[in-house]
Parts: sequence; C-alpha cells; structure tokens
Amino acid sequence: MLASWYDEQGPAADVLHVGELPDPTAGPGEVRVRVTVSGVNPGDTKKRRGWLGSSMPYPRVIPHSDAAGVIDAVGDGVDAHRVGQRVWVYGAQSYRPFGTAAQYSVVPADLAVPLPDHLSDELGAGLGIPGVTAHRTVFSDGPVDGQLVLVHGVLGGVGSLAAQLARWGGATVIGTVRHGSDLNRLDPAVVSHAVALDGDDPAAAIRAHAPDGVHRIIEVALSDNADLDNAVAANGAVIAAYATRDDRPLLPFWPMLFNDVTLRMLGSDDFAETAKRQAARDLTAAAAVGMLTVAIGDVYPLEKIAQAQDRVDTGGRGRVLVTIPN
Amino acid sequence: MLASWYDEQGPAADVLHVGELPDPTAGPGEVRVRVTVSGVNPGDTKKRRGWLGSSMPYPRVIPHSDAAGVIDAVGDGVDAHRVGQRVWVYGAQSYRPFGTAAQYSVVPADLAVPLPDHLSDELGAGLGIPGVTAHRTVFSDGPVDGQLVLVHGVLGGVGSLAAQLARWGGATVIGTVRHGSDLNRLDPAVVSHAVALDGDDPAAAIRAHAPDGVHRIIEVALSDNADLDNAVAANGAVIAAYATRDDRPLLPFWPMLFNDVTLRMLGSDDFAETAKRQAARDLTAAAAVGMLTVAIGDVYPLEKIAQAQDRVDTGGRGRVLVTIPN
Repeated sequence: MLASWYDEQGPAADVLHVGELPDPTAGPGEVRVRVTVSGVNPGDTKKRRGWLGSSMPYPRVIPHSDAAGVIDAVGDGVDAHRVGQRVWVYGAQSYRPFGTAAQYSVVPADLAVPLPDHLSDELGAGLGIPGVTAHRTVFSDGPVDGQLVLVHGVLGGVGSLAAQLARWGGATVIGTVRHGSDLNRLDPAVVSHAVALDGDDPAAAIRAHAPDGVHRIIEVALSDNADLDNAVAANGAVIAAYATRDDRPLLPFWPMLFNDVTLRMLGSDDFAETAKRQAARDLTAAAAVGMLTVAIGDVYPLEKIAQAQDRVDTGGRGRVLVTIPN
Repeated sequence: MLASWYDEQGPAADVLHVGELPDPTAGPGEVRVRVTVSGVNPGDTKKRRGWLGSSMPYPRVIPHSDAAGVIDAVGDGVDAHRVGQRVWVYGAQSYRPFGTAAQYSVVPADLAVPLPDHLSDELGAGLGIPGVTAHRTVFSDGPVDGQLVLVHGVLGGVGSLAAQLARWGGATVIGTVRHGSDLNRLDPAVVSHAVALDGDDPAAAIRAHAPDGVHRIIEVALSDNADLDNAVAANGAVIAAYATRDDRPLLPFWPMLFNDVTLRMLGSDDFAETAKRQAARDLTAAAAVGMLTVAIGDVYPLEKIAQAQDRVDTGGRGRVLVTIPN
C-alpha cells in the first residue's frame, strides 16, 4: 500500500517518507479501514518532533490518529457485516505504531465509528482527537443542559467542537476570542454571547451574560486565563483544561478554593475507553443532526504530508487534512 | 449569656471581649444549643485578623463555628423531641454573625448533629470544619473502597481525619509526614504505609507501596507537593487540596495532563448542603464505631479565648478547644 512513515524523529521534510509498505491485516477484534482522508493534529507533529523529550515509541511510525474511510476487512470476533461500512476513525496511532497516513489502517473495531451517509469524509476525518477531547472537556462532569459554558478559543479546533457539543447538549455558550476583530466570525446559533479577551474588561463582559457565574470553563490557555476564569466561575465550577501557553501555570489557589473550583487537566490518549466510546456516539449524533461541523483548513495530497504537518505547526485556521489516493 | 465577641478586626488580645450578651432565641428551622465545648479553627482567627483583606462581615461577631453541647430550645418547624439531645455543631459562624464561643448558639437544625452518648464533647467539638473538609477531600469523587489514598500531613487536623475517614471507607491509606522523626507517631491501623517527605526519594517510597499509582491525594501543601503528587498519581487521579504554602502554586501542567489529573480546591464554607449533611452523618458513623478520633491539643476556659486563638496561629499539635462554663 501507499503510505507515509518516519523511522526517526526530526523535521517533517527530513524524516517523512512516502512510498510502498506491506498491506496490513486485521487481527482479532480489529478492522481494516481503506482510508480516504487522514486528519493531522498537533499531537502528530509533536510526536514526530520529539516534543518534551519524547523518543520514538516504535522503530517505524505511520503518523496520524484520525481518518475517514471504509471498512474493507474485519478480524476474528468482529461482525462481518461491517465490511463496506463508512466510518470515521480516532486513536489509530495512540499506543500503536501505524496510523492513518496510509491507504490502509488497522484499528480496534471500536475506534472505527459508523459515519452517516450524508456526512462527508472531510467531516469524519476532522473529528477524532479534537472531537473526543472537546467532548471530555464539556461532559466530564455530566450533562450541561441548562448550564452556562464558557469556551475559550472558540474558533480553535477543540474550542469550536466544544462549543457545538455544549450547545447540542443544551447549554448556553459564552465564547471568547483573543481579538475583537474575530468576533464577527462566530456563529450566533452556537455561541450565544461572544467576548474578546483584548477588550477593556473581559471578566465584566462575561459576567454581564452570567451574573451568577459560569458552570464550566473550557480552557485552551490556562496560564493566561486562570485569574479571569476564577473571576467568572460560579461556586463549584469546573475548569476543563486541555492546553496552556506557559508550561507551569500559576494558580490563584485561595480564590479558587473559596470558589470550590475544580481543575481537570485532560489529555486524550488516556481517557477511559467508555468515555471515548460515548464521545464517539455523541459526536456522530450531533453531526448527524447538523449541530456539529468542522472548519476545514488546507487539504494536501499524501505526497505533500510534510507540508501538511508543517502547516499544523505554523498555526492558522481550520483542520488540516491529507487525502489518500485510491 | 456569657459570650466572647469582637466588634473590629485585630490581634486576639486587643479585640476579643468576654462578658454578657443577650440570650439568643431559636427562629423557624433553628435550634438553640447550650454549648459545652467550642472548637477553634484557623479560619476563625483568619476572619478575626482580616486575612487576605477580608473585612468585618457583621458589626459584631461571636467567633467559632464548631462546638458540642445540648439542644435546649427549638424554633418553629423543628421536632420538639430534639430538646435535650446531645449534638455536635458545625458551620455556626459561616455566613452568620454569632458562633459557638458563647453559652448559647443558635444554628439551622441541620447543623446540630446528634452525638452518640458514648462519644465525648471534646470529640464532638473537634469535628466540624476539619471533619467536613476532610470528608469532602476523601469522598468528593465517590467511594474509596479498595482504593489507594495518599494523605499528606497525616498528623494535621484535616489530614488525620481524612486518613481515618478513608480507612473507614475501605481505602488503604498511605500517609506522609514532613519529618522522619514523626513516623513513629502514626497509627498503623489507620496509616498502612508511612512516608517522610524529608527522606531521600519520597516519590519512590510512595511508589513502592503503589506501583500503579495512587487514586486520590489529600493535599495540604499543593505548592510544595505538586510535582511529587503527579509522580505518584495513577492515571485519572484526583488531588483534593485544602491548603497551600505559597499562595500561587505552580502546576506541572503537561505531566498532569498526560496523567489526566483532576485538582479539586476545596473550601468548606461553600460546600453543597447535601454534601455537608452526608459528611456529618459519616463523621458520626465513623466515630460511633471507634474509627475516628480527634487528637486534642490545649483546652482553654472561655476567659482565655484570646490565648486559645493565638495558640491556633502559632501552630502545634492537636485540636484547640475552649470550654464554656455552665
């Protein structure tokens, strides 16, 4: 099969190869997916770059954990009727060497999630890691129906999915962007109240929409926002943080304690299996009723995978995808 | 009635008066408790001192939230059979001006908890704030039966109660002390494994008893222990923190995120009423079966309340109590 891989960590253009590798076969409990679109995440490039001193976990890695495609073979113990099923895939390269940047990707059957016919492969490949992460940030502490959920970085990959999931779950969403110039890019059907963090008094602006405080906060920059978060948090609020700008954020401990604030730090590789499966069901359900879309950024063919990974590292808007030739 | 009070914040000897105040009466839903022993907490002296810029919440305050005594009158809507009932009291001076440093204290009926006959007034007066706090640190995330619970500062007021509650709840308790010289002061029936933080490698010492990590961590010094805590935490562990030494602790964000760690900051004044009532029931139940005791420190008569409060501020071992004359 045509695939991309790396045998050592380093810059994308130096270490990512594209060529022929043996076709994989589905083992017991696994399915083989004929990949059409592969989704690129920051985690994929961090692993390739050796972020925070990480080393090669396997001698050879086919990158990327997310994808869309069609099941073309199943292993022992998997319902044979699944052959031919359109699916979206998550976690393909989590604790496994071979991900989705290939014509075939073999994953445990649960990680290939039925994709409704009216949803595109691009959407399916755009769910995965950011979708599961967003789901946990919103729902780790139970339903949000009727609650006020503050989503920071609501135009970002995880933030936009978290806002849509919270809205789908019945919450009122207050969303923040870093710059006022971005406010007009928000969808008022999802984000009921939008606040720019470069405004005069973002805490007052948020409090204006939440006089008794917000119940949950989805946090992409804990080091920047910890004080702001506590200033707008209701008693007992949960801050669900999946990223920070400074590696060692300072916490305003006593104000948070007086507020009985809980801080969840959420990393997607090790969520409980049951939590991931629930996330997969909910993401599919929200997308199926048109309440969840993914903003697609640049799309690259497999031979330009190095450019796709570099595009993720330089930032920019929308999900970066890689298309796999037939 | 004989009582102690202050009308302005300041040093204990300057602002604490002892003398006669009018007897209070129990309003609807309240009980009046004839106090025998009043318990002193750091929170009591912090309020009196104006800690963190706090101001007088009422023109006059009778300090202390914890006590033991006997119900001698009930207000409308309270079962008259409660008159004569021995009780322990918590939260008397939480969002209310008049606490337990007086011959009579009026509290909502739920805050006066039946005290079994075989338990002493000193024990009853020693539960309250540290007991409710300890209960929330142990049980906020559900039962601990079969789990490994790490209790820092296990000789302290909250720590010792947390360790006993965790043991009562079926957990195996690993307890830490700051100095190896204190290790022989721990009760092996409560603390299965004891570790001194001034030892060579406390993380390794803890891991020796918890190769897969601990499930919950009860934290009294988050700023000191955040890295250690993550080093010994199982995936998905909860750190329940009720104190810190530096006001703005640094968090090792990414290691904690990879570990899916949750940090609960717990301040007792604003726990949910249902949580406090469950804590009161469990504390009584554990004490009733001999699985919960309180180490009593110095005991002062009411006229020496200023010394009692200063004793709390200077630290030292055991719960500080004030006895109220008949």
